[in-house]
Amino acid sequence: LQEASVVEVIFAGSVRRPRLDPALFDAQTAQIVPRLLAAMQSGDDATLREVIAIFEDFDLTVKGVADIAPALIPQAGILVGQPSLQDQADAARAAMIVNALGTVDVGQGAVVVKGLCLAVEALPGTDAMLAHIAALKGPLNEARAGLIYKAPKPTQDLRIDLPTIGIQTVIHAANAGLAGIAFEAGGVILLELEAVLAEAKKLGLFVWARAA
Amino acid sequence: LQEASVVEVIFAGSVRRPRLDPALFDAQTAQIVPRLLAAMQSGDDATLREVIAIFEDFDLTVKGVADIAPALIPQAGILVGQPSLQDQADAARAAMIVNALGTVDVGQGAVVVKGLCLAVEALPGTDAMLAHIAALKGPLNEARAGLIYKAPKPTQDLRIDLPTIGIQTVIHAANAGLAGIAFEAGGVILLELEAVLAEAKKLGLFVWARAA
Repeated sequence: LQEASVVEVIFAGSVRRPRLDPALFDAQTAQIVPRLLAAMQSGDDATLREVIAIFEDFDLTVKGVADIAPALIPQAGILVGQPSLQDQADAARAAMIVNALGTVDVGQGAVVVKGLCLAVEALPGTDAMLAHIAALKGPLNEARAGLIYKAPKPTQDLRIDLPTIGIQTVIHAANAGLAGIAFEAGGVILLELEAVLAEAKKLGLFVWARAA
Repeated sequence: LQEASVVEVIFAGSVRRPRLDPALFDAQTAQIVPRLLAAMQSGDDATLREVIAIFEDFDLTVKGVADIAPALIPQAGILVGQPSLQDQADAARAAMIVNALGTVDVGQGAVVVKGLCLAVEALPGTDAMLAHIAALKGPLNEARAGLIYKAPKPTQDLRIDLPTIGIQTVIHAANAGLAGIAFEAGGVILLELEAVLAEAKKLGLFVWARAA
């Protein structure tokens, strides 16, 4: 990067925990690996903070999505539909749950329906969680209720690994029988905004950027 | 109960949140319902504490499983197999996660594999969580690793709603590709101890009552 005169870096896309092959390391990488391995023992959050620190040690500035594409991160407001009082209570409970989980570096989402927590996001991610709910709720077939809520972890560096909502989230939420999608305003990336909002409207879901 | 000269009560079995039909209430029930409804808004924990308080208001003593059948609640020790160092680290991480969840009155279990949280227990319960993991892990088909950990919520009254492990837990844990089952010593009911331990041995799982 430095040879190419790059001074600013932004991270995008998903990350896997690689199986590291020491035979492929050059000398510089070999120096960095121990720092990463140590951080990886402490969870995703610590790992990503260390990744940022390493880039900064090489005089690269790490920017976040909020810096270069703020339009992707909605500020507080209801974007589609109208959350009911029960939905608002469910969002408050979900926010509390996601926050508690975040303190132990797990997940960035939860599903709450009428005060009851149906699922909490872990490694398999949002789509897996919602598909699981859809499979469970199938036989119940009640009226739409509850929501999926997404928020960053309270301890995470907001320049990396913001939770993301896209068209798949909307489709899965509808299949799971939820009434809507809520998320922490200023802390979640909404991809393909127009398409997401159109799909949510079509499927009868609210989309709400909730003030933290 | 009082007419039958009952003075001690113990709760057993699972609880559903009923749909209450006011037409069925007698005068005494009608007095109690508002207390229960208020508590139900605050979660399972608060609801069960209120249920205990109501019984105590009628001069009934609520006993826990630990009082009348302590043999069902294992104290610290490894009951089958041998958790590896990685398993021990996974159990420590899972205990931290379950504790954090418990503070927001969600779940009594989590699945952790090599430091990664694969699932967190919510309303659908342990079997649903493990079946979900089994479905996800199927294609990976790696060597046995990780564990399910169960513990009561840090705030719950230990006389009601202790987490329970039975033969289904063992079978589901094996299907999910886990190396074992760990739980908080003194805080979890192990049903059909002999059968559970025999099945765990047969399927190659450890069973560990971990000191909290």
